[in-house]
Amino acid sequence: MTVTTDTAVREALAAIAFDANGLVPAIAQQHDSGEVLMLAWMNRDAVTETLRTGNVCYWSRSRGRLWRKGETSGQTQKLVDFRIDCDGDTLLLMVDQKGVACHTGRRNCFFNAVRDDGVATIAPVAVDPKTLYGE
Amino acid sequence: MTVTTDTAVREALAAIAFDANGLVPAIAQQHDSGEVLMLAWMNRDAVTETLRTGNVCYWSRSRGRLWRKGETSGQTQKLVDFRIDCDGDTLLLMVDQKGVACHTGRRNCFFNAVRDDGVATIAPVAVDPKTLYGE
Repeated sequence: MTVTTDTAVREALAAIAFDANGLVPAIAQQHDSGEVLMLAWMNRDAVTETLRTGNVCYWSRSRGRLWRKGETSGQTQKLVDFRIDCDGDTLLLMVDQKGVACHTGRRNCFFNAVRDDGVATIAPVAVDPKTLYGE
Repeated sequence: MTVTTDTAVREALAAIAFDANGLVPAIAQQHDSGEVLMLAWMNRDAVTETLRTGNVCYWSRSRGRLWRKGETSGQTQKLVDFRIDCDGDTLLLMVDQKGVACHTGRRNCFFNAVRDDGVATIAPVAVDPKTLYGE
């Protein structure tokens, strides 16, 4: 989806309670399977670009710049729906993930599970990260 | 689920990258339907209590104290699985939600959706909040 009106972008930005750093956490969920893929952060520019283009764009806190998901790896996220929670301080992005969401080459980032004997890895690497990042 | 060993609690805490405030965001997802219910925050004590008891406990940033989900409303969350993401800075809790997760009386918190003519409410109130909070 994309939004085409200034009204929609303005209302979305007004409904979001950005934190002291101007950021809001955004959960990305695969729209059809319900798989939670990752969590990243957005600022006002990332929200605006995502709504306008339909291609999910985050704010990279480590790099201090807009992060167009998939710009290096090709593993893009198409926006399917854009949701804002009850108090405006979390976003839920319904997306269509191309390939894998995680930089480790796994489909989603939540592959560490607490078990009674410790923390276990529960998902395999689907794509070699060297392939994704050309190292 | 609960964990019964000190090893599991210690490894979980060591795997989590708590932020400068000692907190980590935790996504709660209904374990069987895949519905994303809410996002809240945890500190070390909340993680430990959740793993030990199997009843989800957050840290309330607004109240500055542990928040045993459902302690007032009765709308508890049973822990089904506890996942940590690739860089340790987000948790995914698979839970069994009793009743509704949202303080507005809706099943989940993400009921505001951006549409081309603005932000729309897409989910009905399932339970009157006055019933939940005895107001």
